[in-house]
Amino acid sequence: MRAAGENRRFLPGFPLPTGLEVSTDAARVTDGAELVVIAVPTKYVREVLARVGPALGPEPVYVSVNKGIETGSRMRTSEVLREVVGPRRLVILSGPCLSREVAAGLPATVVVAAEDAALAETARKAFATPSFRVYTNDDPLGVELCGPLKNVIAIAAGICDGLELGSNAMAALVTRGLVEMTRLGTALGARPQTFAGLAGLGDLVATCTSALSRNHRVGYEIGRGRRLAEVLEDLDRALPEGVETTRAVVELAEAEGVEMPITEEVHNVLFRDKPAPDALADLMSRRPRAERSRLEA
Amino acid sequence: MRAAGENRRFLPGFPLPTGLEVSTDAARVTDGAELVVIAVPTKYVREVLARVGPALGPEPVYVSVNKGIETGSRMRTSEVLREVVGPRRLVILSGPCLSREVAAGLPATVVVAAEDAALAETARKAFATPSFRVYTNDDPLGVELCGPLKNVIAIAAGICDGLELGSNAMAALVTRGLVEMTRLGTALGARPQTFAGLAGLGDLVATCTSALSRNHRVGYEIGRGRRLAEVLEDLDRALPEGVETTRAVVELAEAEGVEMPITEEVHNVLFRDKPAPDALADLMSRRPRAERSRLEA
Repeated sequence: MRAAGENRRFLPGFPLPTGLEVSTDAARVTDGAELVVIAVPTKYVREVLARVGPALGPEPVYVSVNKGIETGSRMRTSEVLREVVGPRRLVILSGPCLSREVAAGLPATVVVAAEDAALAETARKAFATPSFRVYTNDDPLGVELCGPLKNVIAIAAGICDGLELGSNAMAALVTRGLVEMTRLGTALGARPQTFAGLAGLGDLVATCTSALSRNHRVGYEIGRGRRLAEVLEDLDRALPEGVETTRAVVELAEAEGVEMPITEEVHNVLFRDKPAPDALADLMSRRPRAERSRLEA
Repeated sequence: MRAAGENRRFLPGFPLPTGLEVSTDAARVTDGAELVVIAVPTKYVREVLARVGPALGPEPVYVSVNKGIETGSRMRTSEVLREVVGPRRLVILSGPCLSREVAAGLPATVVVAAEDAALAETARKAFATPSFRVYTNDDPLGVELCGPLKNVIAIAAGICDGLELGSNAMAALVTRGLVEMTRLGTALGARPQTFAGLAGLGDLVATCTSALSRNHRVGYEIGRGRRLAEVLEDLDRALPEGVETTRAVVELAEAEGVEMPITEEVHNVLFRDKPAPDALADLMSRRPRAERSRLEA
């Protein structure tokens, strides 16, 4: 990246800003830092934080942009951070911000969430530009849960597209997907409104309808009849967060006694070799009910 | 239609079911009917109901599938029906059901709403098939408002696509569009949950992301720099509901004192010759706030 002046693997064609230093020396680059962004794939968060921990002092504001849940521990990134390096001033940034579009200067709108409003405001000022609009939010738990939960639904959306089910089916999937995301989120203590906002509904819509999402692409290929192992091989190291996160979300839902039919069918398709058309048929044949009760049931 | 055995203008390529009679003789076709579907463009609802009124007895269940608000009177179809033919047993059917996909047998999920649960259940049984999934809902006012309000946002979505703003912008638009739809709906007495359901969010997602929507297409052409009059000429008589409905929604919002920034900008672009990029810039430069307060403000 340093030699090329760009991130050729994940963001080719966008030169890195001059003045940006690329380094593996965490101590040096975080020395005196006011703000540290945690943008490591969930799978490696614990390892990386453990390694660079001593260099990460208590002074800076930490901003997590992660959208996964750690397999096994079922921990969010904020929980891993606290466990590995101790309590820190932490802000969660989330919302619909497909990186290629942001790099191209297209408009995007996100939220920064912290329990301390002043902290969220600090992060808002640090990130806001005329094309990158930032709202503050006081439900960091909800905002942090939105990303992982929607990544699972994004895989379902990809499957739906791969099966060529059309816009009506996709719309129903997004609507019912958001219901089950909200159901688990509120069971875990988050505010339901957060899921109706940019980090929940907004990010869900962006990921479910854009070919730029890797989670959507995995689902799409599976909907076309391919197997998970083949698809992941093609993606090289660009593993979408949603795949591993699906396991953690199913476990969380079971632990909380929360029904998540779409997430469960994604899990069946990804890890139990259930054919995608069968998973769809099972979702469609669920007993019809009053729409209202779906929020509780 | 009778001669061709299909609706060549609006649904070419799908033969009408055998046994379906096409007629302009309302008295004859509604005689002894158990269920009458009102599927007339909003602009003509009053005229058609006045004309066929005498033939429409009080016995059948009426099902309105309209998604517009009458200009001038600002009435919903249920209100026009009541005014023109008197109180009737009425069900509102709405949700993401782009007709071409439904005709092709692709899965769709909708809601039927009535104050009387037994009435909604009657309609549910009449319409449900294995690929057309029907939920009941007890907020007919909310379900009836969802369609018109989302058609305005669908025009905005088309503009967003015409300007090539990307998925992040579209996702923000859907999220904030739903917020202002909910705000007006609840001011008018509807339940907020209805807007988070299939008729609200679901239909919004389908219309905003499908090229099959005429409202989206109008917005798209305007986003490409064309003028409303030119676009409507191309569409021949297939006038999208959202255009006229935009006027009625802006009036309703003003009467209720409800802020609807996206709807207002669509109105400015459609009827006040405001250039679409300026409307977007004005939306993006609104004073940032906490995400939570947007639900009230």
